[in-house]
Amino acid sequence: MRVLGIDPGLRSTGWGLVDVHGSKLRHVANGQCQTQPGPLAGRLLALFEGLSEVIENYAPSHAAVEQTFVNRDGAGTLKLGQARGIAMLVPAKFRLEVGEYAPNAVKKAVVGVGHADKRQVEHMVSLQLPGVKLAGPDATDALAIAICHAHHIQAGSHFQAALQRASG
Amino acid sequence: MRVLGIDPGLRSTGWGLVDVHGSKLRHVANGQCQTQPGPLAGRLLALFEGLSEVIENYAPSHAAVEQTFVNRDGAGTLKLGQARGIAMLVPAKFRLEVGEYAPNAVKKAVVGVGHADKRQVEHMVSLQLPGVKLAGPDATDALAIAICHAHHIQAGSHFQAALQRASG
Repeated sequence: MRVLGIDPGLRSTGWGLVDVHGSKLRHVANGQCQTQPGPLAGRLLALFEGLSEVIENYAPSHAAVEQTFVNRDGAGTLKLGQARGIAMLVPAKFRLEVGEYAPNAVKKAVVGVGHADKRQVEHMVSLQLPGVKLAGPDATDALAIAICHAHHIQAGSHFQAALQRASG
Repeated sequence: MRVLGIDPGLRSTGWGLVDVHGSKLRHVANGQCQTQPGPLAGRLLALFEGLSEVIENYAPSHAAVEQTFVNRDGAGTLKLGQARGIAMLVPAKFRLEVGEYAPNAVKKAVVGVGHADKRQVEHMVSLQLPGVKLAGPDATDALAIAICHAHHIQAGSHFQAALQRASG
């Protein structure tokens, strides 16, 4: 099982991939799709092409995207929403189901507490993926999302196995 | 010159095409890409595929998308932003430049006043595109955006022609 995590942003969208073998995680790759200032349509296209290339190169079997924090800055929310639309679209286009996690749920899964700061998240991502080189803060967040989704899927399959044992 | 107008929305994205011959406009087609309630990624994919099909079928040379009204409802702004991201992406993917117009600018171009209501917009779209059958309110708005963009391009080319006469 190979999980892609995406942390969407118009200027920089982070991505990270982990392989899951039983209860073990292994880092595959991480990076950031960056866009240059200019017309919005061109920036969204750059994100679309960048994320499509990641999926073509690494063929994940699962994907998850961070849920966006809605704040009072309507223009900021709109910008982020547009980037997030692309981040949700691309895995769906490759026929992957797309999980969604709130930032606090991601922190809780990776660090153990929902109010962890960026430094703690980076530390725990590095601990759980030995030898990883982080491309930047958005790539780190994307790996955290991938780890969170991997835990979520593992928990689901443990639950299914327990159900089968109970009924078998 | 064939202009595609898009009025983005997650539940229903309107689209409309007009041909421009000199100062004359002719209706080509209009419709609405509708999505069913369900996971967000699937709905965005339906919009992506629907708009891609429209461009493949009708081969517009120009495109424009309505600018989104940012309000205090952050969740609503985010939803609309995600749909709008797709509406901006698809023409860019077909290498079309994408114009953007605020709702008031569209109304002003079509009706003559920026505070026109939906009924007035519908009336003027029908007058400017004789024989048009409107697929619904979002398709009507999309045709209004196409008309607005057509006027904008015509004004630009008249300006270029005047410049050439002045310098010729």
